[in-house]
Amino acid sequence: MNEHLKQLQTWVADQSLDVAYISNFTNINYFTGFFSDPEERITGLFVFPDQEPLLFVPALSIEAVKKVGWPYAVVGYLDHEEPFALIADALKQRVASPLRWGIEKDDLAVFKFEAIMRQFPQATFPADASRFIEAQQLIKTPSEIAQMEEAGRQADRAFAAGFKALRTGITEQGVVAEIEYAMMKEGVMHMSFDTIVQAGEDAADPHGGPEQVAIKPGELVLFDLGTDNHGYMSDATRTVAFGQGVSAKAQELHKVCLEAQLTAQAAVRPGMRAAALDKIARDIITKAGYGEYFNHRLGHGIGMSTHEFPSIMAGNDMLLQPGMCFSIEPGIYVPGVAGVRIEDCVHVTETGCEPFTHTPKEYTVIA
Amino acid sequence: MNEHLKQLQTWVADQSLDVAYISNFTNINYFTGFFSDPEERITGLFVFPDQEPLLFVPALSIEAVKKVGWPYAVVGYLDHEEPFALIADALKQRVASPLRWGIEKDDLAVFKFEAIMRQFPQATFPADASRFIEAQQLIKTPSEIAQMEEAGRQADRAFAAGFKALRTGITEQGVVAEIEYAMMKEGVMHMSFDTIVQAGEDAADPHGGPEQVAIKPGELVLFDLGTDNHGYMSDATRTVAFGQGVSAKAQELHKVCLEAQLTAQAAVRPGMRAAALDKIARDIITKAGYGEYFNHRLGHGIGMSTHEFPSIMAGNDMLLQPGMCFSIEPGIYVPGVAGVRIEDCVHVTETGCEPFTHTPKEYTVIA
Ligand SMILES: [Mn+2]
Ligand SMILES: [Mn+2]
Repeated sequence: MNEHLKQLQTWVADQSLDVAYISNFTNINYFTGFFSDPEERITGLFVFPDQEPLLFVPALSIEAVKKVGWPYAVVGYLDHEEPFALIADALKQRVASPLRWGIEKDDLAVFKFEAIMRQFPQATFPADASRFIEAQQLIKTPSEIAQMEEAGRQADRAFAAGFKALRTGITEQGVVAEIEYAMMKEGVMHMSFDTIVQAGEDAADPHGGPEQVAIKPGELVLFDLGTDNHGYMSDATRTVAFGQGVSAKAQELHKVCLEAQLTAQAAVRPGMRAAALDKIARDIITKAGYGEYFNHRLGHGIGMSTHEFPSIMAGNDMLLQPGMCFSIEPGIYVPGVAGVRIEDCVHVTETGCEPFTHTPKEYTVIA
Repeated sequence: MNEHLKQLQTWVADQSLDVAYISNFTNINYFTGFFSDPEERITGLFVFPDQEPLLFVPALSIEAVKKVGWPYAVVGYLDHEEPFALIADALKQRVASPLRWGIEKDDLAVFKFEAIMRQFPQATFPADASRFIEAQQLIKTPSEIAQMEEAGRQADRAFAAGFKALRTGITEQGVVAEIEYAMMKEGVMHMSFDTIVQAGEDAADPHGGPEQVAIKPGELVLFDLGTDNHGYMSDATRTVAFGQGVSAKAQELHKVCLEAQLTAQAAVRPGMRAAALDKIARDIITKAGYGEYFNHRLGHGIGMSTHEFPSIMAGNDMLLQPGMCFSIEPGIYVPGVAGVRIEDCVHVTETGCEPFTHTPKEYTVIA
């Protein structure tokens, strides 16, 4: 049994549960290696304290489950069958009466919850598997980190494609097209989120997207992108100058943001609090007079999703530990001037941290 | 108030509810014109029987809500605030004690459901808004159909880009790259699902995806694709021959599948049962001896999602009505030979139906 699944089974036993029902498809991938977004269909992983787990999937996915080497039971259902009746049958073959359930409260929709209660009217739900799994996913194994390093190398190549695409007349959306095209041509079929390219004052709106507007010489251009490498994500941001003529003010924003980013990244140590890391970057930006323009947390955890724990922000007392993976992404967004963000995701080591992306962060002019 | 929202409010009143909580972000778009995937953040639309609705969003989305012209109240929350406490405050200003709730059981996660129950311990949940909304979305308005027609024209251009990309040595993934690149270059930044290009025997696996393998002359190539036009989706499939040398058997599969598709599309009438339409296509394929290789329903509804009601399948007694939109997509998948699927999405009219896509369906050889 893989390490993640073994830990989940131990939790099920420790919580004196009869069964845990894992419904989130990203988490099913985490435990089984089987990825499928079943949309309206039902996919569930059922884990017991003292026997082998069971994967329940639409019948048409059974071959795919076998292909990834899932060594335990898999039960399929056809579209006209009632999935929760079949789930109940399969569970009752394993546990006479599953009373104590663990469920993923962050994921499980009420209709599934009610279907379980209909099949098992005596069931209680004392344990939230969402909380256990988010804690479990905080620390990445070496093989997970290797997958994320590959995703980081892909992101570095995506930056290269984006920088190469910058030329007079191209739009923000046009640059996005070139980046994602370059990735697909090398077989990277999914970005981890919609690629962001924003130039000039557009980049001062941290929630805008790429527009059909031409990037002008003398603008700073913000690239925020990442790839999905077999379920493991990258996420990185660079802000570069397009041609000559970037205002001194915009260049200063880059200088301050870079200092905050580099200083925070160099300061990471196991045992440090997440909030303290946020403060290191924030103090530099505040001291330079731009504190009010850094209006988001310093970073977010990353792994099989691009937003998980640890959250690197004020108020989070969590201690950083080796194997934690998160972004360090200070940003300064001054309306009417420019927006600058510089981001690497890193994993904590015994002595500091290592970034997943290696594209230079220094102020760069793309001619 | 827009027609959709007015219908929802009428339903809330008819069900004697104090409030309906709409949590699904696609449905929030349907009712408000505001689209945002809030990930771990909370977005909710609250609708009352006799007063104006309320949109609750992360504070950073308030500007975007105003930009789309939402004319009613919007309440924002910051990351460190407890959203359900703020929701409770806002609701209590409108309804002294909201007891009877409508919720979207298909969407609402247990943690949100429990948060509502904590804020409103007397609340009951007698009405499932998922069922009402899926019925409401069955019939599209003329302006929705116009949006879907535009999405269909985009899909037609995507086919053209894909056919143009076919050349010796290109891979299935390479063709996908060319299609999505062409779409992005014209400003279509989202496909409605991952573009499928499968050649030869690969296409006989209706759940495989595009591979990094070269498409060979003499293979049939299946293209299944669609775009997202401001939230309204297209979805269409064409199967074409790449060069000469396609086997007689594979050509026959195309001929039978085409006859089934054209016959079913020509047979659509208001008042017809969904199951009867499925049977028309299925009988043709069965009579030709390939019934066992048409192993999925004839079609699915489409609108703001690519899989909704009506489902065009055996057992569905639903009567087709003007304004319903669905796919007509017979497929024949013979392992070791080829896979053929031909699909248009259509909207039902007073006298028949009109397709959203117009790329020729006849057997076509791309040299
Ligand atoms: Mn990030
Ligand atoms: Mn379809």
